[in-house]
Amino acid sequence: MTDFDPPLRLHLDGNALVSNWRFLQGQGGAACGAAVKANGYGLGAREVVARLRDAGCRDFFVAHWSEAAAIADLVPPEWISVLNGIQPFDISSIQQLGAVPVLNTPNQIAMWKASGGGACHVMIDTGINRLGIGPEQIANDLFDGLDIDILLSHLASADADSEQNGRQLAMFSQFAKEIPAKRRSFANSAGIMLGPDYHFDLTRPGIGLYGGVERAEMATGISPVAHIAARVLQVRHLNAGDAVGYGATYICEEPTIIATASMGYADGYLRSFAGRGVVYADDVALPVIGRVSMDLITINASAGSSLSEGDWVSLPFDLPELSAQSGLSQYELLTTLGQRSDRIWS
Amino acid sequence: MTDFDPPLRLHLDGNALVSNWRFLQGQGGAACGAAVKANGYGLGAREVVARLRDAGCRDFFVAHWSEAAAIADLVPPEWISVLNGIQPFDISSIQQLGAVPVLNTPNQIAMWKASGGGACHVMIDTGINRLGIGPEQIANDLFDGLDIDILLSHLASADADSEQNGRQLAMFSQFAKEIPAKRRSFANSAGIMLGPDYHFDLTRPGIGLYGGVERAEMATGISPVAHIAARVLQVRHLNAGDAVGYGATYICEEPTIIATASMGYADGYLRSFAGRGVVYADDVALPVIGRVSMDLITINASAGSSLSEGDWVSLPFDLPELSAQSGLSQYELLTTLGQRSDRIWS
Repeated sequence: MTDFDPPLRLHLDGNALVSNWRFLQGQGGAACGAAVKANGYGLGAREVVARLRDAGCRDFFVAHWSEAAAIADLVPPEWISVLNGIQPFDISSIQQLGAVPVLNTPNQIAMWKASGGGACHVMIDTGINRLGIGPEQIANDLFDGLDIDILLSHLASADADSEQNGRQLAMFSQFAKEIPAKRRSFANSAGIMLGPDYHFDLTRPGIGLYGGVERAEMATGISPVAHIAARVLQVRHLNAGDAVGYGATYICEEPTIIATASMGYADGYLRSFAGRGVVYADDVALPVIGRVSMDLITINASAGSSLSEGDWVSLPFDLPELSAQSGLSQYELLTTLGQRSDRIWS
Repeated sequence: MTDFDPPLRLHLDGNALVSNWRFLQGQGGAACGAAVKANGYGLGAREVVARLRDAGCRDFFVAHWSEAAAIADLVPPEWISVLNGIQPFDISSIQQLGAVPVLNTPNQIAMWKASGGGACHVMIDTGINRLGIGPEQIANDLFDGLDIDILLSHLASADADSEQNGRQLAMFSQFAKEIPAKRRSFANSAGIMLGPDYHFDLTRPGIGLYGGVERAEMATGISPVAHIAARVLQVRHLNAGDAVGYGATYICEEPTIIATASMGYADGYLRSFAGRGVVYADDVALPVIGRVSMDLITINASAGSSLSEGDWVSLPFDLPELSAQSGLSQYELLTTLGQRSDRIWS
């Protein structure tokens, strides 16, 4: 058997995922769904969906139809909503799959009606001006004959104390009265923390499920879901004046123990971590020095002097902290995770 | 059949890939290999290996053993070199696979000898101080009994006119005389352009194969290999004063046609493109406005006013230009490409 032990492990904490979902669900009386698009924000949609389904989640949101098909054996297909709408050539496959489209344009509504329709969702744009039917596009008969399950809109600035939130809420509340739908959904993770006025019938958190903290009020209830372990491939003792890595950007100021570990930007640890990133050997923080390579990082291991070839260093996915180190958003830190690590759910 | 037409396509030009390899091969008389680690720099190792094999390439470099196993049916396994070395528990699988390890530490050399050995490669560190046997670790008998095919070292600053290049060359030339090996390999893409002194028996370009231009001398011979096409999901007419996207970071100064397309940071188009990125409708450049979302970008389409729902916009992977726009390295632009696009080789 050519069976190898990958030198990079992505540990994923299923209990933390479920606990985060329960925390967000517990902020009010609305049902709580889950955004699992982009392969569960990079962590693995199938594993995420199975765990949240078992915890009681009944509404899963993806962006692409291929993402719906990839989880359609795990839950009844009508529990899956596809945010990015429909194209004409996909309609027969959509109807066969049975997941529910979020219609975003008058043209999509017309196509859906012409195809024979069935239950659908409708996205109204209340100010993000990104995807959804604009207020100027709502004609009197636009929704006639449409079987709308969920009427949705999306907040643009829920992570900030912006007046835009109240303006979007007022507009969505008005549409919720005027447009006939079984359910209304408005709030993402940060929107949930704006209070129950924002919850309507169904919330649909994403980043909070995966350990993201986009508003300070979430910090107490949200735990990290991921951490990376990378194997140390080499330990060397360098002299003062020795350079480390591409471009010789780091020069040792004194005799320095460096460890090289199996993690690089191809694994999602981008070069913007250089000079600011930290990994851990047991509980000792060790600075990442020099440029991040495609497959490797170099670490100043002088403070963790027992580190040896074959040991592991750890990178907990404290998303706000990693975001501050790298300048990447908490979201990007997850979605750029690479594909060649072992993914180990507990 | 639930068969969907993905709204994002990654077009890959096999002729450009082969042409880039031939350009790099043609810089001197040495054999020319190919770095195909990190899944062929994100483009698909299997497709890359098959094409370069057919063009005459005989040496393929990966980082992980799983990456070697993933291409081992395409070429004789001894054509595959695994840069990140060996761990004791992998040795029996390694010997069964037949790909050749690059030994990076005295400990790895001892393990390989103890296992019965066989052909191997050896990486010497001549100053990048990242991975490879350091000059201080070379004892008299270190290489005794070792069947070394390729003696390697790696340049730290080949993309710059740095004195470090000459220092590394002098050191490697000395080791090449002293350490018995069948072949010597030193130069990556940029190193090839430093001239034939740097080529030895075998070069091993990576980024240049995939359209990266890390030295100005490469610009004439290297062509882009990738371009993305993203489907337009919606076109709307906004008013002056309307905000676009998360955080309302873009405010329309005048009546503006916006198009929303199916590409986001989960697809590798990171948020650092916001305000600087450009996509094309036919040959008209359209600025990406507002924040990049996980699955979506918003575009000022006023200059491409015939753009309609269902059309495609194009993003050619001119890597130096995209690097300047985003602040990401040319390498990261490739390795962060997402997994949910159609990959279409021509």
